[in-house]
Formats: sequence, C-alpha cells, structure tokens
Amino acid sequence: MRIVVLAGGIGGARFLLGVRAWAENHHQVTAIVNTGDDLVIHGLRICPDLDSVMYTLGGGADPERGWGRRDESWVVKEELARYGAEPTWFGLGDRDIATHLIRTRMLAAGYPLSAVTEALCQRWKPGIRLLPMTDDRVETHVVTGGQAMHFQEWWVRHRASLPAERFVFVGADQAKPAAGVLDAIAEADLILIAPSNPVVSIGPILAISGIAEAVRGGNAPVIGFSPIIGDAPVRGMADRCLAALDVKVSAEGVGQMYGARSAGGLLDGWLVDSVDAETEVPGVTVLARPLWMTDEAETARMVADAVALAGLAS
Amino acid sequence: MRIVVLAGGIGGARFLLGVRAWAENHHQVTAIVNTGDDLVIHGLRICPDLDSVMYTLGGGADPERGWGRRDESWVVKEELARYGAEPTWFGLGDRDIATHLIRTRMLAAGYPLSAVTEALCQRWKPGIRLLPMTDDRVETHVVTGGQAMHFQEWWVRHRASLPAERFVFVGADQAKPAAGVLDAIAEADLILIAPSNPVVSIGPILAISGIAEAVRGGNAPVIGFSPIIGDAPVRGMADRCLAALDVKVSAEGVGQMYGARSAGGLLDGWLVDSVDAETEVPGVTVLARPLWMTDEAETARMVADAVALAGLAS
Repeated sequence: MRIVVLAGGIGGARFLLGVRAWAENHHQVTAIVNTGDDLVIHGLRICPDLDSVMYTLGGGADPERGWGRRDESWVVKEELARYGAEPTWFGLGDRDIATHLIRTRMLAAGYPLSAVTEALCQRWKPGIRLLPMTDDRVETHVVTGGQAMHFQEWWVRHRASLPAERFVFVGADQAKPAAGVLDAIAEADLILIAPSNPVVSIGPILAISGIAEAVRGGNAPVIGFSPIIGDAPVRGMADRCLAALDVKVSAEGVGQMYGARSAGGLLDGWLVDSVDAETEVPGVTVLARPLWMTDEAETARMVADAVALAGLAS
Repeated sequence: MRIVVLAGGIGGARFLLGVRAWAENHHQVTAIVNTGDDLVIHGLRICPDLDSVMYTLGGGADPERGWGRRDESWVVKEELARYGAEPTWFGLGDRDIATHLIRTRMLAAGYPLSAVTEALCQRWKPGIRLLPMTDDRVETHVVTGGQAMHFQEWWVRHRASLPAERFVFVGADQAKPAAGVLDAIAEADLILIAPSNPVVSIGPILAISGIAEAVRGGNAPVIGFSPIIGDAPVRGMADRCLAALDVKVSAEGVGQMYGARSAGGLLDGWLVDSVDAETEVPGVTVLARPLWMTDEAETARMVADAVALAGLAS
C-alpha cells in the first residue's frame, strides 16, 4: 500500500513514528511536510518541521525538548549572543547547525529543497520518504495588532501570546508543489492528515496551489486525525491559531473546518478521541478511539484504525 | 605617532601584541592584514589571518594551538563529518563558527570586509585598527605538480609537503586596497613589515595594486623584520615558500628580496637577529638584535629598536 501523510513538525514526527511502525517495510510511506515555518537565521536556512521529522525518525531528536538534536550543545549560540547578533530567541544548537550549514550551502548551489532533504536523509535513514510541501519560498506570517510577523517570531519569541488576527501564507499562491508531491498523492492508496496544527501546519500545505485539489480529486480515501482532544490541543498551541479563524477548539470544529470531500472539503473519515465520540461532521465517517500518541505501538494502532475506517485491508 | 604594520596571521598577531605594548595608547597603530588565505568552507567565509590577529589581540586566541579560539569545541565539525560533508581537513571550531556566521551574513548583506572586520572588532577591542588588505576577493593559489590549489589546501591539508612551483594571487591585479588602507599608509609616520611569511603573507598585500607603490612612494620610513633566524623560519613553513622563488632562506635572502626603497624596493631598515649580524642588503640599514618574540615585552623592545633605526623618537 502507498500511504501519503500530510504533516507538520513535532506532532507530525510522533505520528509518523506510528505510521512507520504500522507499515513495517510492507508499505511505502511518503510524508509531505510543512515548510511554512522555515526561516533564515544568521544566514542559515532552517526547516523546523522537516528537521523535527527527520531527526525523530532517524533517532537523533531530543526526546525531552521535543525539537532539535539529542545531546545538543549551544556554544555557537552563546558566541553569537556575545557578539550581540540578533535574533537571540531562536534556539540554534551546535549539532543542528551542521544540518543547516549543509542545507544552506546546497540551496545556494542550486539544489531544490526536496533534493537537499533527500541528501540529508541519506544520513538519517528515516525509513519513509520525506518531501517538503514545496521547493519554493513560502512563509507563514501572523497578523497581530495590525502588523505581520514571521510565524516563528510569534510562536517562539512571543509564545503565541499576542492575539492572532489572521495567518498569511506568503508566497503560497505562486508556489508549486515540490518535485514528487503531486505524483505521490496521485499514486496513493490512502492519504492521512496527521494530528498536526490544522491552521499553521496542515494549512500551509493545503494552500500550495494544486495540493488540496489533488487530495480532493484523487482516488485515495482521506482520513484525518483530530489534533484536539476534549477542548485542548494534543500538544502545542493550536487553540490560539483556531481562535483567529473562529473555529471551535474541538474535534468537531476542526473536522468541520476540513469538511467532507463529498462537499468540496477534504475528509472521508475523521478519527477523534474516545472522549469526543459525539463529534459530527456532515458527510464524514467519524470514528472515536483513543488518540493519545503515548508510544509507537499505540500510534500504530491509531493508523490501523484509519486503515480499517478507509475500508482497506492491511 | 601613526604606525602602519603589514602583517599575516599567527606571527603577525604575536608581533602586533608587541607593537600594541610599545604604543601603549600613545600611538595609533593600524594593521593591514593579508586576506589571500581567505576561503569559503561549508558556505562560511573564513579569514584566517584577520581572525588570528583579532582573537590574539582580543584575548580570545588559543595560546597552545596558535590559531582559533581558546576553550574551543568541535561539535559542528564532528556533525559535518557524520554527514560526509567535505572538506574535513579544515578545523572549524564551534566558537569560531559564530564569527564566520556573522561575517558571511554581513558580506551577503552587502557590507565590505573592512566594515565587517570593524563590526567584529567592536566585541574584541583589539586596541589597534585592523584593516583587510582588500575588500575584494583575492586568493593565494599554489602551483604544484603543474596544478593550482588553494593555499589552505596546500598548507593545512598537505602540510606544505607538495613542492611549490609558484604562488599566484588570484584576483590581486583587479583588487583595490580596502577602504582606509591607502589613507593609513599616506598618513603613517612609520611603516613596519612584520616578521610574517614574506611570500604568502606579505606578498599578497604588496600584490594589491597601489599598496606597494604607496609604501614605496610615501614619506614614512619602512622598517622590516626578518622572519628568518639563522637558516630557519621563526615559525611556520616560510622556507618551503621561499624555495619556490629561489630566495635563499636567510635574513639576507629575504631582505634582498624586499630590496632597498632607494632602489625600487621597500626597505629603509632591516631588523635581523643577532646571529645574522653579517647580513647585507644594499641600500638598507641593517640592525642585528634578538628577534625571538618570546613575550610582549621582548617584542615591544624589538619595535623600539625599529623606531630608533628609523630615526624617530618614541
């Protein structure tokens, strides 16, 4: 079976561990990963979501912090601060910097981000195929107090404390899906939407022209996983993002935001947590099962539920 | 008094410690530093000689190794090696990388190297003015076995073991002296040539069009310090460089290579070590005094000798 997963960073990475465990070399998995959070810091191109997925699946992620590298050190960051080099609020670890140096150099040499990601994965061997949503520059900006700032500044520097009025995916209308993205969707037997932030992780992917259309118009069933359990995000601050869109912070709110494929939306099936069993999304089959990704086996079980919900045999 | 020093890296840095000690805030010192050794590694612009001088005068240099930062760590380098990223033979320390990140970013933003150097020196406060010889790209290449390679590859990777046929300062004929260089020379009361490698440290500086002419044609007396004591370099591998030019590895050989200003060369005076008292350079006043730069006080004494040789009162 060929499975395509739309995913963001940390939550997406954790979800993909379960997908990989479920697939167990019998199925091909392709992750299409958000790059709207990407930024250039100290001249280095950082891809937080791609790196979270790559490090996590490659066994190099820090399990406590949730982002960045295991056994990280911070010498370069300290030195940059001693020079007074801004910004200081973004955590660039020494091990992490090696990744960014290679990426930045390859991009400067003319390689597209998809090729750079493939090259980096030769070391990490994530066991699935990682594709950036686009090889073009797309940046998620947050409008707050009438002014736009880069998503990372809002998220990391301000801890999402400034009220978001709206999100803008700058460049998304001109961006093309990265090499391989549309083919992967077209050839998929199943498309999963990870329980990532629907606004700023899945949102930018769907904003790239052609991707939502391909998902909606393809043959593969589309099963989504709710990132909200009860009235709170599984992790992260999706609630503060949903507020800007006037979407109710609930499995039902997000499910209805995605909408039924039969009604011009995205979903055929919607996995919600057992506590959200009363969720209704018109035109979408809702299945309530525990959605806490407590470990790989439990997350793999969630994937098995999605496969069953899609009417596919594993 | 305004003193201008032409200098290379590690030996130049040690010499400049003595010049600064001699000057003791009563005199202005400007160092014009070789950038022919500069290179781009992993996308970072490295200026080995400028950094050696800046770190040494700023108290941040590693005193054992002679280059790079004190208390250095090597995490980024190890990670780059794990990615298989080439080259691996150039030592990029974590602390050092912060300097290169700032420099590379500022250069990319359009600042000339002279302005970048001034900005970096706001942290290091070297107590003298540091100028790169040029803001343009000039690279010293070594022709060996009929093929040219970057000086650093020959010097660091091959430890100068491949016989050098000649040295080429690529770009020197088009390069202009950096902002401030010609003014500093024109306004100088005394010009010192540090006991740096005459071929690959002082040579590139003099190859920038206009610099040698300004030194030769200016009002300031020019006093050089022999980098050779007896038949060996004070430090480094100047002997392997001199061989390519058929210059005798001696204080006399190097002095004659520089030549008398009165005869179209550079020197008015030539400081040699006491063991080289019989040195003769036609048209140049030779003074034999101990030239081992054992500490700052001893090096300052050498500078005082040069001031006296130039007929100037300190």
